[in-house]
Amino acid sequence: MIKKVLIANRGEIAVRIVRACAEMGIRSVAIYTEPDRYALHLKRADESYSLGADPLAGYLDPLRLVNLALETGCDAIHPGYGFLSENAEFARLCEEAGVIFIGPKSTVIHSMGDKTQARDSMRAAGVPITPGSDGNLKDIDEALTLAEEIGYPVMIKATSGGGGRGIRRCDSATELRQQYPRVISEATKAFGSADVFMEKCIVNPRHIEVQILADSQGDVIHLYERDCSIQRRNQKLIEIAPSPSLTPEQREYIGGLAVRAAEAVGYENAGTVEFLLTGNEVYFMEMNTRVQVEHTITEQITGVDIVREQLRIASGLPLSYRQEDISYRGFALQFRINAEDPKNDFLPSFGRISHYYAPGGPGVRVDTAIYTGYDIPPYFDSMCMKLICWALTWEEVIARGRRALDDMRLRGVKTTGTYYQQILNHPDFQRGEFDTSFVPSHPELLNYSEKALPKEIALALAAAIAAHAGL
Amino acid sequence: MIKKVLIANRGEIAVRIVRACAEMGIRSVAIYTEPDRYALHLKRADESYSLGADPLAGYLDPLRLVNLALETGCDAIHPGYGFLSENAEFARLCEEAGVIFIGPKSTVIHSMGDKTQARDSMRAAGVPITPGSDGNLKDIDEALTLAEEIGYPVMIKATSGGGGRGIRRCDSATELRQQYPRVISEATKAFGSADVFMEKCIVNPRHIEVQILADSQGDVIHLYERDCSIQRRNQKLIEIAPSPSLTPEQREYIGGLAVRAAEAVGYENAGTVEFLLTGNEVYFMEMNTRVQVEHTITEQITGVDIVREQLRIASGLPLSYRQEDISYRGFALQFRINAEDPKNDFLPSFGRISHYYAPGGPGVRVDTAIYTGYDIPPYFDSMCMKLICWALTWEEVIARGRRALDDMRLRGVKTTGTYYQQILNHPDFQRGEFDTSFVPSHPELLNYSEKALPKEIALALAAAIAAHAGL
Repeated sequence: MIKKVLIANRGEIAVRIVRACAEMGIRSVAIYTEPDRYALHLKRADESYSLGADPLAGYLDPLRLVNLALETGCDAIHPGYGFLSENAEFARLCEEAGVIFIGPKSTVIHSMGDKTQARDSMRAAGVPITPGSDGNLKDIDEALTLAEEIGYPVMIKATSGGGGRGIRRCDSATELRQQYPRVISEATKAFGSADVFMEKCIVNPRHIEVQILADSQGDVIHLYERDCSIQRRNQKLIEIAPSPSLTPEQREYIGGLAVRAAEAVGYENAGTVEFLLTGNEVYFMEMNTRVQVEHTITEQITGVDIVREQLRIASGLPLSYRQEDISYRGFALQFRINAEDPKNDFLPSFGRISHYYAPGGPGVRVDTAIYTGYDIPPYFDSMCMKLICWALTWEEVIARGRRALDDMRLRGVKTTGTYYQQILNHPDFQRGEFDTSFVPSHPELLNYSEKALPKEIALALAAAIAAHAGL
Repeated sequence: MIKKVLIANRGEIAVRIVRACAEMGIRSVAIYTEPDRYALHLKRADESYSLGADPLAGYLDPLRLVNLALETGCDAIHPGYGFLSENAEFARLCEEAGVIFIGPKSTVIHSMGDKTQARDSMRAAGVPITPGSDGNLKDIDEALTLAEEIGYPVMIKATSGGGGRGIRRCDSATELRQQYPRVISEATKAFGSADVFMEKCIVNPRHIEVQILADSQGDVIHLYERDCSIQRRNQKLIEIAPSPSLTPEQREYIGGLAVRAAEAVGYENAGTVEFLLTGNEVYFMEMNTRVQVEHTITEQITGVDIVREQLRIASGLPLSYRQEDISYRGFALQFRINAEDPKNDFLPSFGRISHYYAPGGPGVRVDTAIYTGYDIPPYFDSMCMKLICWALTWEEVIARGRRALDDMRLRGVKTTGTYYQQILNHPDFQRGEFDTSFVPSHPELLNYSEKALPKEIALALAAAIAAHAGL
C-alpha cells in the first residue's frame, strides 16, 4: 500500500485528496506557492512545502515536484485535476524516478491527450466517433475539401487541446478560412503544438460522460454517467448524475462503450469518457485521464469513494467492486460556485471572503477550501466551492438544490449561486429537457437582482423600526 | 398540503425542520426566548417571534404556542424532539384548536407515554415485553414479591418517565427497599405522577430501535434499525445504522415487530420503537412518538427524508413508499457533539464558540445551529452539533468518522469529539462487539490529552524556529 502521497495541487481537490489519505492511514504532503500560504490544504495535510513566490510556476514544474516527492519520502504523487494532471511528461518523470503517478501510464495519457490518436484508437475499438479528419489536417485546402464532404458546421480543434480550449466552430467556407489560422495560432501558444484536426459539429448535443475505474489487473468497470450539458463556453456549471433523460438502454449502452474505450487503450486508474448525444446518436468526444471536478456526484449516487479507489489502484490492489456490485440511487447535482459576476459577463470576482457559512442538513455535501477571511487569489481558477446535493427523486433534488443555495452564506465576492437558482427555476431544466444550448439560449436568466440585504439584517432593521414607531 | 408551520423548538432540530419546509414550499415560523435571540433557527425561518425573557417558559407553554400558531396563520405545529414533543396535552390543544399537530393523535401519545399502558398494548399485540408487573405497583410488598418471582436484578421505573430518567436498578431486596421510595419521589417531581412499575433488568443489552412511518390511511412501514448501545447514563452518544451485529433474519424480525407495534396502537406519523436485545431475545422497551435526534442516520442509509415524510403525512398524504421500496445501503454513524468536558465527568461546557468550521467532503453531513461567535446558552441541552458520517462499509465509516472528527474545528468550549475518537479506536467497537455496558466498562478511554496546539499553529511555530536557527 502507498504510504505517503505528495499532492501536486491546491484548493478543494487538494483537501479532497488529503481527506482520502487520512481515511486510509496514508500520510499527505501539501505544496504551495506564496499566494497560497494561508490555504486550507496546508492546514489539513500532514506536511507542507513552499514552492516559492511565483503563484503558478511551482505547481507547474514537473521535475521539481518529482524531486520534492523523493526528498520528502513520498512513494506516490496525486496530480488532482488541471495543472500537471494530464501532462504525460510529468507521469513519465514519475515512472523514471520510481514514484507512483496516481493515474494511467504516461503513454496512455499521451495517446488520449493527442485527440487524433484518441480518435484512431476509438475507431479501432468500435467506439463511434464523429465524422472528421483521419488524423491532423495538412492545410486549409484539405480542410475545405473535407468540410464540403461531411457538411457544415464543422469544428477545428487543437490536437493537443483540452478543457474546452483551442476549439472553433465554422459554419461556412468563409468562416473556416478565417478560423483555421486562429486555431493554429491558439494551439501553438496554449499547447505548444500547431496540429489541428476537423470534426463534424454536433449541434446542440447533450454532454454525457461516464466515470470509469480500471485496475492494474486489467479489470474495468463504469460508475454510470453524468450529464454536464449545463455549460457556458465549454465550462461546466451544474453537473447531474445520473442524466435525467437517458433511457435504461441508453445508460447501459453508453456505460459499455466507456468500458470498451478504456480497455482498448489499456487504461488504469480513474478516468472519464466524454460523449456527445444527439437524438439516438452517441459519439466519443474525449477521454479525461484524471479525476474530474464532478466526480463527487457519482460518489453520491453510487456510494463509491473514487479518490479512495484511485489510491488503492495505484497501490496495485484490485478494484473493490465488480460491475454487478455497482448500483445507483437517487439524483445528485453539483453546483460549481465560482467567484464570478454572472451579470458582468462572468468576470472573476476575487478578493476577501468576509463571511462564509457552509450549508448543511440532509443530502448536502460541501467540498471547498475557503473559509471566512480567506482571500481568493487572482491567479487560479475562479471555482471556490462545490455544493453537491442528493435526493431520492429528481423533483426533490431540485428543491434541495434551491434550499442549499439559499442556505449558503458566502459574502465579500460575487458568485454564481443566484444564477444557478435561476436555472433550477426554469421549467425546461425541471423537465430534464436541456442540452448544451441551454445556457446560451437563455440570457434572460441573468435578469435577477441579488438580495439587497441578508434576511437577518432586514429583520433586525424591521424590528428596530417597529420598536421605534411603538408598534 | 400544509402551508405554514410553527416550529415549537430551537437549535439544530428547528433548523432541520425549516430546511424541510423550505424544500417543500411551506412557510416556517420560528420561536425564541431571550437567550436565543441570535440563534440560527431564527435567521433561517421565514418569520420568528419572541416568547419573552424566561429561557424555557416560552418553549414549554402549550396554550401560548397554539395561540401563536393561530395568530400567525400557521395550519400546523412541528414539535421537534424534547420540550413539548411528547406532551399529549399539547397535541390535544392543537386538535381542539384545529391546528395540525405533526405527530400522532394525542390519545396515542398518552397511551405510549404511560409505560404500563404501552406494555399492555404490546402484550396484546404479541410484541414481546420484559417480565414485570401487570400495570403499576401497589406498594413495596408487591414489588418485593414480584422481584423474587422474576429474579433480580429488576428495574423500578416511573410510569410517565422517559428519556432515561426515573429509572433505578435493584440487585437485591435491600436495594429494592432503598430505591423504591426514591423512584416514587423522582417520578412525582419530574413527571407529576407517583406511578411506578417493575421490569426484569436485562443486563448489558444492546439498544436497538426501529424507525417507522405510518400514514393516516393506516399504512405502516419501517426504515430498518439503529444501534444506540453506545450510551452513558442512558444518554446516547454515538448512533449507528444499521446495527453492525444483527443477522438479516433478526433485522427482518425486529422491523416486523415495530410495524406490528405501531399498527396495534393506531400510530400515525414518524415514530421509533425501542427494543432491548440480549442474545437472541428481543424485548419491547418503549415507543418514542416523535422525530428522534438520530433520525439522520436512517436518512443516510435509506435515502428517505423523514421530516419531509412527517410533513406529508400530517397533510393527509399517503406514504411515499411501500415497504418493498425501502432498502438500505452502507453504514452511517452519528456523533452527538456535546459541549461537555468528558474528563470532568461530562460537565457541561457552555460559552462562546471562538471558532467553528464544518467538516465536509464525501460522506459527511452536519446538522447544527452553531456558528463562530455563537454563545451556547446554559439553559438547554448540551448537544451543539450532530456529525453524521456515511460509507459503503463498516470499516470505511469508522475511518471516515475519525477523519471527520479530526476535520471539525470547534473551539472555545470543550466537546466530546476527542472522546469519540477514543471509542472509534477501540478494537471491540471496530469489531461491532459492544452493548450498553461499553461506555461504563471502558473508563480508560477518558485517558487522552487534547491536542496542545492546533496543527497549523504548531507548524508555523516550527517554521519560525527553523528559520531563526538558520535551518
